[in-house]
Amino acid sequence: MPIKTRSTRIRVSGTRTASSARAAARKTTKGAAGKAAEKTVSQKMPKKGEERLRIVPLGGLEEIGRNMNYFEYEDEIVIVDMGFQFPEEETPGIDYIIPNIASLEPVKDKIRAVIITHGHLDHIGAIPYLLGRLGNPPLYTLKLTKVLIERRQAEFPNAPKPNIIEVKYGEKKNVGRYFDLEFFGVEHTIPDSMGVILKTPVGNIVHFGDFKLDRDREGNIYQFDEVQRVGRMGVHTFMMDSTNALEEGHNMPEYVVEENIEELLKNAKGRVLITTFSSMLTRIAEFIKMAEKQGRKVAINGRSMRENVDAAKALGYIKFKEGTLIPVQEFNKYKDDKLMLLSTGAQGESNAGLTRIVNGEHRYVQLKKGDTVIFSSSIVPGNERSVQILTDNMARQGAIIHNVKIVDIHSSGHARAGDLKLTIETLKPKYVMPVHGYYYFRFAAGKLAEETGLPEENVKMMDNGQIALLTKDSFEVTKEFVPANYVMVDGLGIGDVEEVVLRDRRMLATDGMIVLIVTLDRRTGRVLKNPDIISRGFIYLRDNQELLRDIRHKVRGIVGRIPKHQSLDADYLKSLFRDQIGQFLFHKTHRRPMVLPVVIEI
Amino acid sequence: MPIKTRSTRIRVSGTRTASSARAAARKTTKGAAGKAAEKTVSQKMPKKGEERLRIVPLGGLEEIGRNMNYFEYEDEIVIVDMGFQFPEEETPGIDYIIPNIASLEPVKDKIRAVIITHGHLDHIGAIPYLLGRLGNPPLYTLKLTKVLIERRQAEFPNAPKPNIIEVKYGEKKNVGRYFDLEFFGVEHTIPDSMGVILKTPVGNIVHFGDFKLDRDREGNIYQFDEVQRVGRMGVHTFMMDSTNALEEGHNMPEYVVEENIEELLKNAKGRVLITTFSSMLTRIAEFIKMAEKQGRKVAINGRSMRENVDAAKALGYIKFKEGTLIPVQEFNKYKDDKLMLLSTGAQGESNAGLTRIVNGEHRYVQLKKGDTVIFSSSIVPGNERSVQILTDNMARQGAIIHNVKIVDIHSSGHARAGDLKLTIETLKPKYVMPVHGYYYFRFAAGKLAEETGLPEENVKMMDNGQIALLTKDSFEVTKEFVPANYVMVDGLGIGDVEEVVLRDRRMLATDGMIVLIVTLDRRTGRVLKNPDIISRGFIYLRDNQELLRDIRHKVRGIVGRIPKHQSLDADYLKSLFRDQIGQFLFHKTHRRPMVLPVVIEI
Repeated sequence: MPIKTRSTRIRVSGTRTASSARAAARKTTKGAAGKAAEKTVSQKMPKKGEERLRIVPLGGLEEIGRNMNYFEYEDEIVIVDMGFQFPEEETPGIDYIIPNIASLEPVKDKIRAVIITHGHLDHIGAIPYLLGRLGNPPLYTLKLTKVLIERRQAEFPNAPKPNIIEVKYGEKKNVGRYFDLEFFGVEHTIPDSMGVILKTPVGNIVHFGDFKLDRDREGNIYQFDEVQRVGRMGVHTFMMDSTNALEEGHNMPEYVVEENIEELLKNAKGRVLITTFSSMLTRIAEFIKMAEKQGRKVAINGRSMRENVDAAKALGYIKFKEGTLIPVQEFNKYKDDKLMLLSTGAQGESNAGLTRIVNGEHRYVQLKKGDTVIFSSSIVPGNERSVQILTDNMARQGAIIHNVKIVDIHSSGHARAGDLKLTIETLKPKYVMPVHGYYYFRFAAGKLAEETGLPEENVKMMDNGQIALLTKDSFEVTKEFVPANYVMVDGLGIGDVEEVVLRDRRMLATDGMIVLIVTLDRRTGRVLKNPDIISRGFIYLRDNQELLRDIRHKVRGIVGRIPKHQSLDADYLKSLFRDQIGQFLFHKTHRRPMVLPVVIEI
Repeated sequence: MPIKTRSTRIRVSGTRTASSARAAARKTTKGAAGKAAEKTVSQKMPKKGEERLRIVPLGGLEEIGRNMNYFEYEDEIVIVDMGFQFPEEETPGIDYIIPNIASLEPVKDKIRAVIITHGHLDHIGAIPYLLGRLGNPPLYTLKLTKVLIERRQAEFPNAPKPNIIEVKYGEKKNVGRYFDLEFFGVEHTIPDSMGVILKTPVGNIVHFGDFKLDRDREGNIYQFDEVQRVGRMGVHTFMMDSTNALEEGHNMPEYVVEENIEELLKNAKGRVLITTFSSMLTRIAEFIKMAEKQGRKVAINGRSMRENVDAAKALGYIKFKEGTLIPVQEFNKYKDDKLMLLSTGAQGESNAGLTRIVNGEHRYVQLKKGDTVIFSSSIVPGNERSVQILTDNMARQGAIIHNVKIVDIHSSGHARAGDLKLTIETLKPKYVMPVHGYYYFRFAAGKLAEETGLPEENVKMMDNGQIALLTKDSFEVTKEFVPANYVMVDGLGIGDVEEVVLRDRRMLATDGMIVLIVTLDRRTGRVLKNPDIISRGFIYLRDNQELLRDIRHKVRGIVGRIPKHQSLDADYLKSLFRDQIGQFLFHKTHRRPMVLPVVIEI
């Protein structure tokens, strides 16, 4: 649901709340968006000498996805991440939801750097849509992320060639008078994930991107020295990934996940089919390693996964012997117990690799009795039903299925409560600003910070679009907002699908519609021919001839009751049709189709 | 997704599969449904003397919900349950999905009894829609279920007054020459849940309805003597609730759930708001008991919950002191720590009690800082988003929230794997027929039966509509099917929403539609006036005047290119508009709205 509708749900009397402020900000979105935003911005710009840093989150604070924050000091702006969000139930037909950059476009000349923390779509997905509109500023990121961004950008013919400055862990970059950057490594589910220290005149702002802590068999945490090093540098504000703040304890170590999967593989007598997100490159690398251990050949099914593996291999992030990877065309040339297939489609997506195999629509691979299928991914809410259908169909064909429910083979890429606390204790920040997640997730993350001893007032809960002003010793969350409502991508259109179109889609989906075409004689006001009726999604009219007759009769009745001397007003007539036919249909069916009258006068 | 679409996903070459048989059965549904079904039925009717019992599951085997099975021996039929199912993502706008009774209607005179195991909607929900069409046969059920059925039936003015025969645990009923019934108690989440033994000429068919095993502090299982007694009577076929077959171990005992909630209540300094399903009467009774312990008054918010509590109280299933229950209007008259509110809306439903409180739309109760909110229910898949919105809004208002994720306060009403195995071991059935759940759930349930030592061939996997023939020593799952596809309730219509209407709704929801009204001069073939264009859910036309102009231009062009000498064919013209305008719009927008042309010739 777009923010418009959602925010109306909140009503706290008395003070001007986040939502009402957001509502005010929202009004500025359509048409005059740029200008209005500029005004908001300049009003609140710190005057020279005031030395205030502005933090503005544009997305990722009231949803999972479309992560984007920017930082402004005097005439310099630095952006962290440009992700998109997948559509929701309330945004039918939409492809993606991207951050609103209305407040940045008028000041795009100030942008000194865009830092991309890693290559997942909720961090890079909006780049092709936004980069050009922001004057193609330089992107700072690591090698794999660079390749993924470039490849994606090439699919958008009108998007500019990105100007990417490849950086390394530990590297420092100066990107203006007020911003020095330093990058550090974090553990996540894709190689080349990083965090960034923004060294500003008010202090170090540390953004970890997405991260978790992963332990080895001795309990040592990988790259924890990096966390300690960042902590020693002094942290003004820690922008903290809150995705898993509600999950207690620590993440299951990757080596345990690996062992569980290895155990499953050992017991698999036939072929092994594994499905996961194509972006889970760290996990995919593990699967290939284990296949080699068991002497299995590996075929990769699904374009996105194949491309990601190619990229990671070219950069040396995935290593395997010559001959381990085979084309999916050759999958049937080997013995069953010498085969592993890695496939997209873990969410039951209708066109994805695994679905085509299970439905018997795949050219080279068919499911067969004795196949072991491993789902190494959790189900994204909303996909339960399609995954259930897929699972049922696999079980019917005799596959042995393992999923997260049965064996824990998916470990999330986001730090859980215990590790978030450990990170806060190590960084010792003055302020914690929870990012990445719904309010409740971030609220829980904030509570964790308090449990480490941080005063409640130093936990900074913000909303998308809200402006914070920071000095060396303060972090003020203002009541000012820049536009941050959903910008929807639908086909070639960006931002042209507004709430009114979505509302219509939802209405049409519920009860369908009926079009009444009434041709009138302009002079006599009489209905000239039998009204045409078109209906879709309401009722199958061919089976309901009687209703059709009744509607026509009703239409003639409405026209007939208009006094002869009264001149015809098409708009008035239409409103009569809408109301009275609508009521009539509700009475007859208890449904409320959209009634669309057309009056043609001749 | 209705079975039509779903079953096309399965393709197993060679044998005639369940799905293809189902496809064949499906063809008989529309119009001639009754007749065709009758034919299927009579073809497969066992001849006299063959002594075969037919089991036909009409629902609940490929979904969660619309549970209904019938049993036929010669000229006698007994039905167990008549539930409905809540709509799915793929059935937009639908109210409920009910079982297809096409195979029963022509033989309704044979129906001797309908047994209703308990009062949940997935077991009683379809009664008002089906009872009249089946000749109002007698219902056998327990007291509370009787009241719930009667009250619901009264809300349907055209439904017949049900003829309910109230039975007790342990009671026996003879309902025909071939069917003796015996009822026994089971543990579930609503009082008066029962199982039934159908004593037939081939042996005892035992249906447990929904059940779980619940343990006291000493580990003794409540009502387990009943399970043992049923086992001693000899079980031919055990029809087994598979809902929780994928969950390992035992259910968390209710006393632990109670303790956890009591602990939460003890720590609550202010008001306590608890939300759960209004049908979870056992749990609701516990909450009221605990409120009394702590000296809290209880208000009930939500009509369905209030009515259920009234019914249960009148029957003595919920006991509390005079004055414990207060009207919700008086909620603000007491001190915060003396208050408990029980509310509907655990799924974030837009009009439910809790949502209205959280949104500030409730007349008497507003959320405030320090309120403790307890979600004592799991989230039904598909409701994640609305529950998230609700939770976020509560957290914003300072509520302290507890849900299943944080503390285990919801214990499912369905036996988990360990208890299913224990039940099988105790009953020692010849055959196990898993019911209630998706194929994969039932498949897992079947595997559990095998683990107890039952031969694989004695686990009977069936599909909705499939016919099984039983003798004393055999259980044959035939390849014959009766119609069992979805029957959809939408407003007043039952079964009138077909796949074509749903497909249109899904299309309209994705890309909307555009209506082109083209008025032509019949003689000259010229376009008489500027084509009218109506569009909804596609693009906001007011902001896209240029596209509108282009479409009109295109329409004129299409008409203009038809040679003068060619006579106008409206259907041909319409197909030209559909194709060419559709292509044009896709080219311009990458969206595929439904194009609906209207040609008016004058």
